[in-house]
Amino acid sequence: MKLLRVGTAGAEQPALLDAEGTLRDLSGVVPDIDGPLLADAAALSRIRTAAEAGELPELDADGLRIGPPLARIGKVVCIGLNYHDHARETGAEPPPEPVIFFKAADTVVGPHDTVLVPRGSTKTDWEVELAVVIGRTARYVESQEEALAHVAGYAVAHDVSEREFQIERGGTWDKGKNCETFNPLGPWLVTADEVPDPQNLGLRLWVNGELKQDGSTAEQIFPVAEVVRYVSQFMTLYPGDVINTGTPAGVALGRPEPKPYLRAGDVVELEIDGLGRQRQELKDA
Amino acid sequence: MKLLRVGTAGAEQPALLDAEGTLRDLSGVVPDIDGPLLADAAALSRIRTAAEAGELPELDADGLRIGPPLARIGKVVCIGLNYHDHARETGAEPPPEPVIFFKAADTVVGPHDTVLVPRGSTKTDWEVELAVVIGRTARYVESQEEALAHVAGYAVAHDVSEREFQIERGGTWDKGKNCETFNPLGPWLVTADEVPDPQNLGLRLWVNGELKQDGSTAEQIFPVAEVVRYVSQFMTLYPGDVINTGTPAGVALGRPEPKPYLRAGDVVELEIDGLGRQRQELKDA
Repeated sequence: MKLLRVGTAGAEQPALLDAEGTLRDLSGVVPDIDGPLLADAAALSRIRTAAEAGELPELDADGLRIGPPLARIGKVVCIGLNYHDHARETGAEPPPEPVIFFKAADTVVGPHDTVLVPRGSTKTDWEVELAVVIGRTARYVESQEEALAHVAGYAVAHDVSEREFQIERGGTWDKGKNCETFNPLGPWLVTADEVPDPQNLGLRLWVNGELKQDGSTAEQIFPVAEVVRYVSQFMTLYPGDVINTGTPAGVALGRPEPKPYLRAGDVVELEIDGLGRQRQELKDA
Repeated sequence: MKLLRVGTAGAEQPALLDAEGTLRDLSGVVPDIDGPLLADAAALSRIRTAAEAGELPELDADGLRIGPPLARIGKVVCIGLNYHDHARETGAEPPPEPVIFFKAADTVVGPHDTVLVPRGSTKTDWEVELAVVIGRTARYVESQEEALAHVAGYAVAHDVSEREFQIERGGTWDKGKNCETFNPLGPWLVTADEVPDPQNLGLRLWVNGELKQDGSTAEQIFPVAEVVRYVSQFMTLYPGDVINTGTPAGVALGRPEPKPYLRAGDVVELEIDGLGRQRQELKDA
């Protein structure tokens, strides 16, 4: 299933994109798409049955904005340097174990919302990423086999990054990862049953129509199952938490000088096989 | 005012500790203590007036647990190495600008709740900290003078830290800062008007009755006003966000070998002048 939320910011309603590409109203079926829903297998099963039986009313999509696919995001855990090709382009060794950092949940916006270039920024960069959405509490998960059973689904994420704030201002990376609007998510959450192999997904990103990233999750150093298992040794993952699993090669940081960092007026488009497409215009904060 | 939340986990009710030390029921006055309430000056003023007029019913405190003072915490921003004496004990230079890291909001527990020693931990450490609770959205705040107007109040925070996970496992500090139960907060939120000088507060922490930390916020490298101003240049602070402003000297990490890290059965007590006292027993996760 493709689950999404549509409407003006703060007033989005839950919806479903059916197999024919028709938007269906879910607001009479579930209060929202969030952690409790993702943890409720019976509710998800009811939605699926109703969708297949054609029982969900069509939603008039005219003028509707798509918001982030989750109403309440718990935490956003990010994995740094998780693609062989991206580690090479930044000059870093592949890390011996996953590198973890955070984005605040309040950085999450819809897939087509404006992205703001922070004040004082000269190095705003792009990163297309496979986002994993947790559906069952994961705590000290013992094996990779077990780990995937905790995943509700997948989505496209844009891990926007300000490289000067991230790398040149002291301390951890968080200063460059948490600026307003820095985590477009969506357009929808695709349930895990429709993503049979998360390690075989093409990811692409364009800036002003020019292809900049063209990778595959096959290049991930730590696959999704290992990431979920590993993270759960250090912190508990709850339904509605999101993991951004890293970006492939092709970011501005990895290019020759002058590096083509983003500026107001630029347009970024992103897609992942089977997970849909995002488009953001950049504006000054 | 001292605002707090009491009751079983997940079912806490808002309450107020009045000037005579009597617990008063706020549940008929406000739905909860969270971001919207902190941003609502009129609501806070109504509570104050009702409290002073003795109009709030007494709450039977028997058998009541104190939860974290906020129902919905946005993000928890932490400032690392923010005390001259703590920077010295860890062998670090005082940072030229504030060091930022995060704790996930789901690590926050009540002030007297159990703290769990993570599985595999050998270096669980204590850190008493002054927590700043945001009441007005702070975005590119220009001066320290302006910054304090965005603060709703203050509380005691325990920034529990696993030093091996934090420092020896690669990447940022987040692996050692986000284990389950690693951020006791409370017992109450003291509104900013009752804390005339946040740079003159004594902070103390005991382990099994022995005084380990005995510092003062006068030792902060970056005072609260500068922290709020600085952080707001990189991310937007919203009502209900919390900033842990760093810890003074005296943590286990700063002591001679064998360092006295925490173990199941230990009892940690913390207090800050005017902000109340915490007590946690440690158990194995």
